[in-house]
Amino acid sequence: MFLVLFGGGDINIAVVGATGIVGTKIIECLLRLNVLPDRLYLFASKKSDGMRVVFMGKELFIEELCPENISGKHIDIAFFAAGGTVAKSYVHHFLKAGAVVIDNSSAFRLQKGVPLVVPEVNPSDLKLHSGIIANPNCSTIMLMPVLSMLDRLYGVKRCVVATYQAVSGAGAKGLEDLRLGEMGFAAKNSPISLYSNCLPQIGEISPNGYSEEENKIIFESKKILHNSNLRITATAVRVACFNCHSQAVNVELRKKYDDNRLIGQLLNLKGVCLKQSDKSFFVPTTIDADDNFDIFIGRVRRDVSKRNALSFWLVFDNLLKGAALNAVQIAKYLIDNKLL
Amino acid sequence: MFLVLFGGGDINIAVVGATGIVGTKIIECLLRLNVLPDRLYLFASKKSDGMRVVFMGKELFIEELCPENISGKHIDIAFFAAGGTVAKSYVHHFLKAGAVVIDNSSAFRLQKGVPLVVPEVNPSDLKLHSGIIANPNCSTIMLMPVLSMLDRLYGVKRCVVATYQAVSGAGAKGLEDLRLGEMGFAAKNSPISLYSNCLPQIGEISPNGYSEEENKIIFESKKILHNSNLRITATAVRVACFNCHSQAVNVELRKKYDDNRLIGQLLNLKGVCLKQSDKSFFVPTTIDADDNFDIFIGRVRRDVSKRNALSFWLVFDNLLKGAALNAVQIAKYLIDNKLL
Repeated sequence: MFLVLFGGGDINIAVVGATGIVGTKIIECLLRLNVLPDRLYLFASKKSDGMRVVFMGKELFIEELCPENISGKHIDIAFFAAGGTVAKSYVHHFLKAGAVVIDNSSAFRLQKGVPLVVPEVNPSDLKLHSGIIANPNCSTIMLMPVLSMLDRLYGVKRCVVATYQAVSGAGAKGLEDLRLGEMGFAAKNSPISLYSNCLPQIGEISPNGYSEEENKIIFESKKILHNSNLRITATAVRVACFNCHSQAVNVELRKKYDDNRLIGQLLNLKGVCLKQSDKSFFVPTTIDADDNFDIFIGRVRRDVSKRNALSFWLVFDNLLKGAALNAVQIAKYLIDNKLL
Repeated sequence: MFLVLFGGGDINIAVVGATGIVGTKIIECLLRLNVLPDRLYLFASKKSDGMRVVFMGKELFIEELCPENISGKHIDIAFFAAGGTVAKSYVHHFLKAGAVVIDNSSAFRLQKGVPLVVPEVNPSDLKLHSGIIANPNCSTIMLMPVLSMLDRLYGVKRCVVATYQAVSGAGAKGLEDLRLGEMGFAAKNSPISLYSNCLPQIGEISPNGYSEEENKIIFESKKILHNSNLRITATAVRVACFNCHSQAVNVELRKKYDDNRLIGQLLNLKGVCLKQSDKSFFVPTTIDADDNFDIFIGRVRRDVSKRNALSFWLVFDNLLKGAALNAVQIAKYLIDNKLL
C-alpha cells in the first residue's frame, strides 16, 4: 500500500475500477474540478495490482479490490466504476469505511432511497441519501437538462429519442473492437462488429421488447424528473464512433412555445451549449463534444408534424458528463453542501 | 461510338452518369433483374469519355453526355443518375430520342404529373407518366413499404424518423472522405469529417428549419402515399458507415393492432425481410443489408409511451433498393405492363 498526502483537501477519496476507461476519467475530473483529496486510494482487479498512476505529480499504486485492502482505511467518498456485480459485492465494505458511495453502474439506480442525480437537474435529491448515490446512465444524463427545462416550463407530453452511441460506452473492449474492425479484423468482444455499422441493440432485450439501454433511459428519466407518468420512448443504437454519444430527440409539449424565447432559455441552461446559426453545417458533432464538459444542442426546430412539438440534436462526451464528470460533480455538491 | 447488340431484349437503354456509384449499380441491376437491353448506351461527363465497361461479356465505351451523342439514337428507357442539374439540362434530349426517363435526382420528384414510385407501394402511378418518372430519395424508399402497409391497415397518425445514413449516399466523394478519415486525414469534400462522427445535417437547411434530406422524407412520403395530411417528422444524420442506411422509426397508429398479427403482416410484405427472434443480437444491421435487395426490419416493439404506437428498426442497401434497384424495378414494371 502506498499513501500519498496531497494536503489539497481534507477528505479521503477512493476510486474503484481506477484503471478502467471511466475510472481514469474520474481521476482526471477530480483535478479538473479541483476536488482534491487528502488521500486518494485507487482500487482495481487483481490484474492491475501494483500498477502505478501519477496524480498531481506523485506516484500512486493501484491496490487490488479485496476486503483486507479496504478495512482500516477511512474513506469519505468512494467512486465505483466497475460494473454492477462489483458494486453489489463491495459497496458495503466502503460504507463501513465511512464512505458515501457514488456508483456509476445500474445496480442501485432504481432502488428506493438511492438518489439518482444529474446535479444541474435534481441536486436536492442528494440531501436524502443514505450512503449510496447512483450516477445515471450516460444516455439519460445527456437528455435530462434540456428535457427537465422543457418539462418545467412547458410540460412534456411525450418524448421520442433515437441514440447514436460511441463504442467507448462499452469500455476498453468497445474501443478495441472498433479498432480491430478498422484493421479488417472481426470484433473480439461483441457479437457484431461496429465497424462501418450501426447496432440497434445495447444490452439484452427485456420482456417489454426494449433493450436494457432503452429501459434505462425510460425509467431513469422518470425517477430524475420525479414524473412517473412521463411518456418517453427510445431506440438505443451503437454507432462507429470512438467517443461521444449523440441523440435525435423529438418532444411534444403541453403548452405553446415561442421559438426565440426557447432559444434564449436553452442559451441560459447550465451545462448546455447551443450551437446553431444560419451558417450551413454549423451543427454540433462529436468533434465539438470530445473532452468537453458541456452537452451540445443544435438543429432546434419546430416540428412540422405536430403542434407545440420540436426536434433537436444532442451530443456530449459520454465518458465525461455521461459518467466521470457527473459523478465528480455529485461529489463536489456533497462536499460544498456538507452532505457527506 | 460503340454499339453492342445483346439480342437479349428489344429495348434500348441509356444510363446517364454511368461511371458514378449509382450508375454502375444500375448496370448491375439490369443484369440481376434480367432487364436486358438490345442496345445499352452509357453516358458520363467528359472526363469519363472513352472509358470502357464490360457488360454481359462485351466491352462498352462510355460516351460524353452532349446533345450530339444523343441525337440520332433511339432510346426506350434512360436512367439518370447524375444529379439534378444534369437532369434538368438533359432530360428533354432523351425524351426527344423516344425515351421514358427514370431520374434518380430530386429535380422532378415533387413536380405534378411526374410519378414518384416505389414499385411495391404505388406502381399504378406509373400509368400516368408523361415521359419522366422520379425515383424517390433513398431514405423515403426505405420507409415506404412498411409505412404504406401500416397506413393502409391501421391508419398512420404520426411518424417520427431518425436516420443513420451511410457515406455512399454522398457518392464516391463520401466514400473517399471516410477513407481519408480512417487514414488520419481531413475530409476533402465535406465540411466535417464523418470519421468516428455523426453529422446531423444532410443538404442545406431549409426555411422550415429542416434539412433538405429531412424535407425529402417528409414531402415525398406524402406524395407516394397519396396522403397530403400525413404527419411525419425526420432527423437525417450521416454516420460513419460506408454503405447501407438505417432508420429508427416510431409510428402512432389510429387503430389498435395485435402484436402477432402485425408480425405476420410484416412477414408477408414484399421486398421486406423481418429479422427478429428471442435470440439476443439477432437484429438486422448493414452486414445483412449490404448487396441485398430487401429492406430489413427488426426490433419491432410496442411503444411504452403511447397506445397503438410501435417502434422498429430498418436497414437497407441505399445504392440498391435506395437508388439503382428501385429505378430498374420501375423500368421492369413499365416493360412488363407495356407502359413505355
